Amino acid sequence: MTKLEFNNELVQKYSNLTRNINEEFINIHPIQRGGILTAEAFKALIAFGDGYSLCDNCLKGRIDQIENPPVVGFLKDMAKFLNVDNVMPEASARESKRIVMGVLAKKFPKRSTVVIDSLAHYTTYLAIEANDLKLSEVPNSGDPEYNIDPNDYEKIIKEVLDADGELPLLVLLTHVDYKYGNYNDPRPIAKICQKYNIPFLLNAAYSAGTLPVDCKEFQVDFITCSGHKSMAASGPIGILGFKENYYDDIMNLSKIQGNISSKSFPSKICNVMGCPPVYGAPLITLMASFPSVVKRTEKELADEEAKKANYVIEKIKNVKGVRINGKLPKVHSLTNITTEGFAEVAKTHPRKGFFVRDEFKEKGIIGMLPGISKDMKYSTYGLTWGQIEHFTKSFIEIAEKYNLN
Amino acid sequence: MTKLEFNNELVQKYSNLTRNINEEFINIHPIQRGGILTAEAFKALIAFGDGYSLCDNCLKGRIDQIENPPVVGFLKDMAKFLNVDNVMPEASARESKRIVMGVLAKKFPKRSTVVIDSLAHYTTYLAIEANDLKLSEVPNSGDPEYNIDPNDYEKIIKEVLDADGELPLLVLLTHVDYKYGNYNDPRPIAKICQKYNIPFLLNAAYSAGTLPVDCKEFQVDFITCSGHKSMAASGPIGILGFKENYYDDIMNLSKIQGNISSKSFPSKICNVMGCPPVYGAPLITLMASFPSVVKRTEKELADEEAKKANYVIEKIKNVKGVRINGKLPKVHSLTNITTEGFAEVAKTHPRKGFFVRDEFKEKGIIGMLPGISKDMKYSTYGLTWGQIEHFTKSFIEIAEKYNLN
Repeated sequence: MTKLEFNNELVQKYSNLTRNINEEFINIHPIQRGGILTAEAFKALIAFGDGYSLCDNCLKGRIDQIENPPVVGFLKDMAKFLNVDNVMPEASARESKRIVMGVLAKKFPKRSTVVIDSLAHYTTYLAIEANDLKLSEVPNSGDPEYNIDPNDYEKIIKEVLDADGELPLLVLLTHVDYKYGNYNDPRPIAKICQKYNIPFLLNAAYSAGTLPVDCKEFQVDFITCSGHKSMAASGPIGILGFKENYYDDIMNLSKIQGNISSKSFPSKICNVMGCPPVYGAPLITLMASFPSVVKRTEKELADEEAKKANYVIEKIKNVKGVRINGKLPKVHSLTNITTEGFAEVAKTHPRKGFFVRDEFKEKGIIGMLPGISKDMKYSTYGLTWGQIEHFTKSFIEIAEKYNLN
Repeated sequence: MTKLEFNNELVQKYSNLTRNINEEFINIHPIQRGGILTAEAFKALIAFGDGYSLCDNCLKGRIDQIENPPVVGFLKDMAKFLNVDNVMPEASARESKRIVMGVLAKKFPKRSTVVIDSLAHYTTYLAIEANDLKLSEVPNSGDPEYNIDPNDYEKIIKEVLDADGELPLLVLLTHVDYKYGNYNDPRPIAKICQKYNIPFLLNAAYSAGTLPVDCKEFQVDFITCSGHKSMAASGPIGILGFKENYYDDIMNLSKIQGNISSKSFPSKICNVMGCPPVYGAPLITLMASFPSVVKRTEKELADEEAKKANYVIEKIKNVKGVRINGKLPKVHSLTNITTEGFAEVAKTHPRKGFFVRDEFKEKGIIGMLPGISKDMKYSTYGLTWGQIEHFTKSFIEIAEKYNLN
């Protein structure tokens, strides 16, 4: 292939990358609903599209110290919103978890086990693995509720203490889990952690930005949040909130020095390789959406979103083969259902399991996994009541078409 | 403050975050020129603004394995472009360096020193610090050229061998440095690394995407690139290129397992917490700009950019108090000059050092650090010849205004 041919091929492949999902469809993709940009974020995205666009007026070489645009003030407002002593922007919630575990592993070198709920996101497991730590899971009640009993945390802590001869390094709770969208109250677990004096991290990737969150009330030491998952931000960006007593650990300033140049970087944060990697679009869209995010997490609006999720469930639960998985009534909009009726149909359908997605797409609804007919995970977060009605009606119509009513 | 007052305050602060730098000014900000979006990237940015927008058709839970949009094909094309066996998208070049050093530290636990050029970016130092490694700098020739002598690499390698009783863990060269924009030929250093059998990393954050890069010709084991710095991408995104023999180390699949749930994640990459955090805008804009980036790094166009940088230098070098720092002629557009004439003026100017930025801004040019008059770092990369003329003319006019001609 000549250079010219290669160049022409690249132009054909990459010069027209389009996406019209949210223009043409009702999008119920479970990880996308909370991250859909607000109008203000869209405007900011266009203004700050260039990679280093937030750094025009960076004077200190740290994005968290930029005054214009008002990053410093924003981080204070975000801390106030989460009701936590400090926040730092991070690459993601997963990266925040990795950092917290790394920090604690240095602080408590004898402790080596992280206690997690058994519905924790896979990135929680990977944060443990990346730090060469061990895990101990808190069980759940299994089908149909998959409930976590807070008292089991104490049981597992004791088991770890027995096995390791040391306390767990960290206790972690997934506030709303990725699979069933179950909501867990952090407070009883916080009490247990305080009794044993173990740091407590709340992974709020699905909740902070969609549900009320109050770190002081929850009594958590760390909170990890996701801008692109639940705060209407263009990703990737996470927020790590932490108590004052961990300030020096999280904001660990660089101490390394050049042996010839004598260069040193005492204002740079080692945990984030100097400056949190959220230079342009991620941080500015998080900031631009922030007023809407604060508003939408107020109890009345959050309750309204739960009402939508429960409405859909109420309407579709009697469709043949449908089972609702997870705790009811829903607090968070992420919903997991088994659709055995659809799976039956798929066995003889010419499009096999793909027929489910096809049928919904035909009705202007998108976001389910292609090829999957036996279960469905979706989120109704932020849909209008009209869209909720349409989704519900479509579900029932599709079921009726295949005699599943 | 009531809740309503807080909400209103947030709307006022964050709902109108605007930026018109590139619309209203010629932007010579040294870290921004290579990251300015192409028209194609802008279109993609708007289409894929939402956080998880690239994941519509993710079937395997790994962004690097998505076929639509064509991420898989893009990564192959990127590898072809860099002429390296494999590439992975990463959060940033700095994160790529951290990962490579971590991987090598596990592979060669007895080796503990990274040999770096003394003009390495601060994030190179922080990657070393984050991995609890030591460093040994290769000196530079100092004022005015700050040249790195490749032969010094061998000297330092021998010193490390003497001091540690082990070879260095890694040798790193900054292809084009952040401070003087000096271009370094990797080949003689690659030869030394091969002689001693030490892995060699080229940090190409400033070069890959603006200058021709060929990893096979350079004989490097690893290359780290920056999408937002030099590949016209909305950040943050880096590209890590690596040789086949490091595949299993870089793509280290998760082995952790839930002790109760038995959950495991054998397709997730531990080094990137599962899936590289570049879910939407960062990767899609990198892809959309890629055809232009490939084109602009061809020798003729790269030479034209060098010509622009050298043209400006030729015109301004005789201004009173101006000294050009770094090697000449320029290969890369990043230019560092001492402006002692401006510093003299600043002593008695009512705006002190800020007058320099004021004067240039008045002439429609922006991007220099506020308050700094004694030196100046700028990049002419991608400016049109008309803009180059205007910048040169403006520089001389400002000098003349203050009798520095």
